[in-house]
Amino acid sequence: MDENRVLDRENGDEEMVEVSQIRRRAITNNEEPGSEIISIERVFEQKPVPTWREQLTVRAFVVSFFLSILFSIIVMKLNLTTGVIPSLNVSAGLLGFFFVKTWTTALERTGLLRQPFTRQENTVIQTCTVAAYDIAFSGGFASYLLGMSEIAANQSTEANTPADIKNPALGWIIGFLFLVSFLGLFALVALRKIMVIDYKLIYPSGTATAHLINGFHTPEGSEIAKKQVKTLGKYFLFSFLWGFFKWFYTAEDSCGFQAFPTLGLKAYDNSFYFDFSTTYMGVGMICPYIVNASMLIGAIISWGIMWPLIGNREGSWYPRGLKSNDLHGLEGYKVFIAIALILGDGLYNFVKVVARTLPSLISTLRSKINLKTLPIQDNNNTDTSIATSYDDEQRTKYFLKDQIPKSVAIAGYIALAIISIIVLPHIFHPLKWYYILVIYITAPVLGFCNAYGAGLTDWSLASTYGKLFIFIIGAWAGSNGGVLAGLAACGVMMSIVTTSCDLMQDFRTGYMTLSSPKAMFISQVIGTGMGCIIAPCVFWLFYKAFKDIGIPGSQYPAPYAIIYRNIAILGVDGFSSLPKNCLVLCYITFAAAVLINLARDLAPKKLARFIPIPMAMAIPFYLGAYFTIDMCVGSLILFIWECIDKTKAKIFGPAVASGLICGEGLWSLPQSILALAKVNPPICMRFLSRKDNSRVDTFLST
Amino acid sequence: MDENRVLDRENGDEEMVEVSQIRRRAITNNEEPGSEIISIERVFEQKPVPTWREQLTVRAFVVSFFLSILFSIIVMKLNLTTGVIPSLNVSAGLLGFFFVKTWTTALERTGLLRQPFTRQENTVIQTCTVAAYDIAFSGGFASYLLGMSEIAANQSTEANTPADIKNPALGWIIGFLFLVSFLGLFALVALRKIMVIDYKLIYPSGTATAHLINGFHTPEGSEIAKKQVKTLGKYFLFSFLWGFFKWFYTAEDSCGFQAFPTLGLKAYDNSFYFDFSTTYMGVGMICPYIVNASMLIGAIISWGIMWPLIGNREGSWYPRGLKSNDLHGLEGYKVFIAIALILGDGLYNFVKVVARTLPSLISTLRSKINLKTLPIQDNNNTDTSIATSYDDEQRTKYFLKDQIPKSVAIAGYIALAIISIIVLPHIFHPLKWYYILVIYITAPVLGFCNAYGAGLTDWSLASTYGKLFIFIIGAWAGSNGGVLAGLAACGVMMSIVTTSCDLMQDFRTGYMTLSSPKAMFISQVIGTGMGCIIAPCVFWLFYKAFKDIGIPGSQYPAPYAIIYRNIAILGVDGFSSLPKNCLVLCYITFAAAVLINLARDLAPKKLARFIPIPMAMAIPFYLGAYFTIDMCVGSLILFIWECIDKTKAKIFGPAVASGLICGEGLWSLPQSILALAKVNPPICMRFLSRKDNSRVDTFLST
Repeated sequence: MDENRVLDRENGDEEMVEVSQIRRRAITNNEEPGSEIISIERVFEQKPVPTWREQLTVRAFVVSFFLSILFSIIVMKLNLTTGVIPSLNVSAGLLGFFFVKTWTTALERTGLLRQPFTRQENTVIQTCTVAAYDIAFSGGFASYLLGMSEIAANQSTEANTPADIKNPALGWIIGFLFLVSFLGLFALVALRKIMVIDYKLIYPSGTATAHLINGFHTPEGSEIAKKQVKTLGKYFLFSFLWGFFKWFYTAEDSCGFQAFPTLGLKAYDNSFYFDFSTTYMGVGMICPYIVNASMLIGAIISWGIMWPLIGNREGSWYPRGLKSNDLHGLEGYKVFIAIALILGDGLYNFVKVVARTLPSLISTLRSKINLKTLPIQDNNNTDTSIATSYDDEQRTKYFLKDQIPKSVAIAGYIALAIISIIVLPHIFHPLKWYYILVIYITAPVLGFCNAYGAGLTDWSLASTYGKLFIFIIGAWAGSNGGVLAGLAACGVMMSIVTTSCDLMQDFRTGYMTLSSPKAMFISQVIGTGMGCIIAPCVFWLFYKAFKDIGIPGSQYPAPYAIIYRNIAILGVDGFSSLPKNCLVLCYITFAAAVLINLARDLAPKKLARFIPIPMAMAIPFYLGAYFTIDMCVGSLILFIWECIDKTKAKIFGPAVASGLICGEGLWSLPQSILALAKVNPPICMRFLSRKDNSRVDTFLST
Repeated sequence: MDENRVLDRENGDEEMVEVSQIRRRAITNNEEPGSEIISIERVFEQKPVPTWREQLTVRAFVVSFFLSILFSIIVMKLNLTTGVIPSLNVSAGLLGFFFVKTWTTALERTGLLRQPFTRQENTVIQTCTVAAYDIAFSGGFASYLLGMSEIAANQSTEANTPADIKNPALGWIIGFLFLVSFLGLFALVALRKIMVIDYKLIYPSGTATAHLINGFHTPEGSEIAKKQVKTLGKYFLFSFLWGFFKWFYTAEDSCGFQAFPTLGLKAYDNSFYFDFSTTYMGVGMICPYIVNASMLIGAIISWGIMWPLIGNREGSWYPRGLKSNDLHGLEGYKVFIAIALILGDGLYNFVKVVARTLPSLISTLRSKINLKTLPIQDNNNTDTSIATSYDDEQRTKYFLKDQIPKSVAIAGYIALAIISIIVLPHIFHPLKWYYILVIYITAPVLGFCNAYGAGLTDWSLASTYGKLFIFIIGAWAGSNGGVLAGLAACGVMMSIVTTSCDLMQDFRTGYMTLSSPKAMFISQVIGTGMGCIIAPCVFWLFYKAFKDIGIPGSQYPAPYAIIYRNIAILGVDGFSSLPKNCLVLCYITFAAAVLINLARDLAPKKLARFIPIPMAMAIPFYLGAYFTIDMCVGSLILFIWECIDKTKAKIFGPAVASGLICGEGLWSLPQSILALAKVNPPICMRFLSRKDNSRVDTFLST
């Protein structure tokens, strides 16, 4: 014991010396402290980076296959019961690591190991698994697909004619998924350099996963790196245990820390509260300050000012007594105003990117050189691509090494789109080919918006875009089959938007682990292929085994199926059914988003960095302010830390943040398994006003 | 901003260097790290210690007087409303500091300051104020005194004859208080060296207050001392804000963090839960490990095993359906078994101390030298008085400098006792002179037990001893006037026990701030005198102004008045009214306490330090296990900290603990004021089982 302590103390001393050396060097070199010496890639320098072919091992895909089945079952069951699905990405990375690590360690002992287990291979497993099990969610088995069925239709008095009904069957579901799931991969792949390197989008979860994977594979040697991994591990454990602890008090959704009225009951009613989520605190620590500030501003504008004000107009702007998720009411304003803001920002940036990329694309097309070997980094946008540190240099080098030619991306997208346009109307008769064409033309733009937003804030709003298209296509198709057309359109759009955003996030992880983008892309293609078969099969199992799927009050109520169908029914009534002034407000916010972006681009740089980002502002518009509070708390902690000790904050901040994100992320797995095993939390931590509490007191004592 | 950061960083570096130098020096000198160099008294070395006369300034008593009135009003009101009174000691120290500091700073500017403000003077203010306002509690205005009144008597069907009633009147209350309040001061003062220096009792609150006062007066210069003060301040602020935060969720006693079933609902029902009290975490950090471990063992034996087992005998050992505070039931076992354990340990130690002290006392009496100048350190117990560090050396030196002669203590006690014995029966007719004699013979023993227990665990069990004597004297006096006699006896006993324990705690604070014990004693005498007048006057104000005092359901229900009277009514029935097997269990625990102590004294030292302390074990027997959990958490944190970095834990541990204790302690003041102003916390954080929760859900939605 004493010996250990002495050793610990020595380590402590060494660390201090090392950190203060870094400080001194940084000061003498007149650069920002901690930028050069604390390099992850320097630590990994001695480890060779495998080629993209070496990164794609058979064992990786075998492990991914089994993990995909496991996670698909978990996701499907949660999907059909509550409809709320936690992010299992970290679990995927972690389990992948432990399976292959055990395997390789065993082989190493027997001397049979031919290829060591690298962080790139680990990234491939993670990417493939996530791509596969994500289809269990984005396939809409508990939302739009089930919403098409007779079961959902019978729960409504409207639109239950055969034209608006399509019952699930294994055959067409697999076919449909194959048709739509790969499009997302091709939609944005050409923009990856712009998103990851030029725009430097963070993708907080992707970054955290990369830190975790790097941590697992850190070679011996560097004291600081060891300390970082230790810090990550410590906060990982803390966050995991905290998630576990919180679970006990969450007997229902309205219970526990997730419903803690930290800022008072009044603020809680307007979704302003700190919900003790370590995940979002970590995300807040990784996101730049301006993103957190923008989100807070957005939250205040929407939940603090606009929604309460509009809520006061109940009975005048929209009818009284609507359900909270009825698009005729306040929900309509939330969804459409948020989308207007997102589209305003997204379109502005999309146009900007296209305007920059197009000239070089045209010139290369004209010069008719071999398109296949032309990598996309040849665009003229070089001003931001100057590598600023050794890490960035190395990562950019490897990120740009193996290219997916732009022509492949474009040709792939167009080819798949054409097949889709021909085949899909045969599956869904009301879905005309020109609807699909419109979807495929707008999809890359919306995919870009979503991937851009997720890169900034970690929130993917795929289902919001899906809902938008239920509404638009439903309105377009009208009363005959419009519901079915809307739901099908939702499926197509959600699939593209989800997949393209996932891909970009995986590119970010790949960037930080020196994984080849080509390997990542292929891994995602294979994963998607697996998912298109695994997810429908798992669904079919449930559907055939349990006869009560989709029936309210049963074991598998699939609550979102009926919600999605109701949106479609609303859509058939068209835009005129939207609440009063909703469209006007949408126009205003759209214009505001464009103007704010213009201001950001035109203002002098000193001023521009204080102008909020509309995309980040929009996220809380629809989702609520609570996670913004979490993120701002994380951000504030980092800020205070930086004030106290900038070097340490810089070295250990990302490790702390990643630990916080990943720990609670891993807890999702046992939590899901507990939910599946019907082990419910025993206690409800409830928050009552004084008045309600004394009523409850009298009630319980009787 | 940047400049500040650089400065901060430099400070950080300096601290690191300093700490590691300490480590190195400690290692080369082959001594425990941090024992010599991190000396508080070295920091204060340049500051002269004023004589005991200089410590007692007029301004100190003026400030004390006004603070006493303020705190007496607060305590009295809380007393009469809920009966639960937080510890305001820290507030007293703090406000005393700020008042005198503002005063002296103002004078200093005008050049009129003759005497600088010292930490000794600060300690004097704190001591005097606490002594004064404590009488508002120990005077029993809301318990035994009001229990004697007609109002309380009319609420019961028994014992409401005039012989058992004495209505409050300003005259006899002041007289009574003057008769009983000073006895406690003389009862134990002779044992102060044994308690503070030889037994090294910690008195966690006293220690924390001393750290706070030392912190306020730390002179410039030492980097480490500055860091310690900063650490104290940081945790003080955290603890204060945490107390504030917790308040919002405590609409009722059964709400909030204080009712958090951290270990599950089943464990909560048996009082096992961590209640997020920073105070007790701090106390746990200051208490030695063996005390925390003993308390935990005691909690497990009592609340984990004995009470549930006895509870199962409901209907067989004691009648079913009793109120929870009925001594006929489980409560009887708790009170009497806890007291048996305490008495076993206390008597053992008392006998030990007397056996050691008596020979020297007798020999000095025989040699007939001038008793007045004989200090008590001349006893033969020198084996433990070897000073181990510079701090201890200095503190012991000043603690033994100004002596209160033992003869004064004994003579004072005997003289006051004789006056009491003559006068008290004239105030309370049923209270015979021989009852009082018995009380005054046993009081020093019980006072010793209580002061010893509080020194170990920070819990004063004065009201438990009071209840014991309501019972004993009530039983002895029998049905004619036994109730009144019992309540009066309770008053006498509680007063002695409280005061003697307070005095000892103040001696500990004085020891750590180099205050003269003589000054402390005089300050306490003056404070007690103030209290004997202020407290009855404040009570009289309430009693005359509000006509509903003591009436259930009114604004001032004074709930404890009727409880105390009921104990007295029970006492009149005698020991035969105790539940079955209660006395047998008491004999067993008493014997166990003596045996465990014998084992501790006789076992080899290596083994002995693992044998639990019965006194510490007894505290949770009656009070519950929850604060034991808090203390063990604090203890665990310190243990882990020591494993990671022993030197830092040693230097900053007491500062962290003191900050935690004092911060929440200060919060008591605004909390009390809010309660007086009828500002109630808005939210109830409630914990319901799954089943209850769904019932409440249905109830609230209707």
